Amino acid sequence: MSDYEVLELGPVEAWGDYVSESGTKGKRFVDRTIATQYIGVSANAVEPGEGSAAFHAHSLLEELYLFIDGTGEMALDDEIVPVGPGTTIRVGQGVQRAIHADPEGPGLHYLCIRSGGDVLKELPRDASRDPERTLPW
Amino acid sequence: MSDYEVLELGPVEAWGDYVSESGTKGKRFVDRTIATQYIGVSANAVEPGEGSAAFHAHSLLEELYLFIDGTGEMALDDEIVPVGPGTTIRVGQGVQRAIHADPEGPGLHYLCIRSGGDVLKELPRDASRDPERTLPW
Repeated sequence: MSDYEVLELGPVEAWGDYVSESGTKGKRFVDRTIATQYIGVSANAVEPGEGSAAFHAHSLLEELYLFIDGTGEMALDDEIVPVGPGTTIRVGQGVQRAIHADPEGPGLHYLCIRSGGDVLKELPRDASRDPERTLPW
Repeated sequence: MSDYEVLELGPVEAWGDYVSESGTKGKRFVDRTIATQYIGVSANAVEPGEGSAAFHAHSLLEELYLFIDGTGEMALDDEIVPVGPGTTIRVGQGVQRAIHADPEGPGLHYLCIRSGGDVLKELPRDASRDPERTLPW
């Protein structure tokens, strides 16, 4: 068989129903099911008014956030960017990031794509949370 | 300013309206606008009955195809996988691939994510088309 692998994430509207083995709802890591080499992807659903529990940054990974639908905001260090259908944000190393869905909106669906210039599983853990940094919403 | 960059792709339903500088319609490379390091992404719209002009493979890049909506098929060497909302396919090196939207369906919207274990722009061109291989639809 050729070197490919298939995973059915289901329709975007249903991503919020996914519950991981550790009990996290609405965040599914494609690369925990499919053995990828360089590409990490999570499929995310955020309820209205919900979002990141804290800021986090990466020292090695580049991340690209691609918002599929919904409305909200993304905080990048001290700046806030409004996000909606098709908003795509590349985040470099060291930038503290957090996401929030508008309380009055339909929620948010987005993909977080990550890669680090090497085989993903051979990279050390490079994420750091900053629970001291106050979320701006 | 922090190290991030924003691109508005617009709503998924409107991706088919995008025309590149070279005149290609419905295929937009995020990394031609945003200066990414490791991550390449194209946002794609395929009309019903349309699809890849030929098979192609990569010798270095890993690709992950994430279908957002619509119905169609993806050919991977001699196999055919039906694709629909949320179908995600990791394609390894050397696999010839092509995509086709069902003639009777609404078309297809998908993302093609690519990475090669190094700074993307420093990798040599690694794609090869196989116009001799007959498309299966």
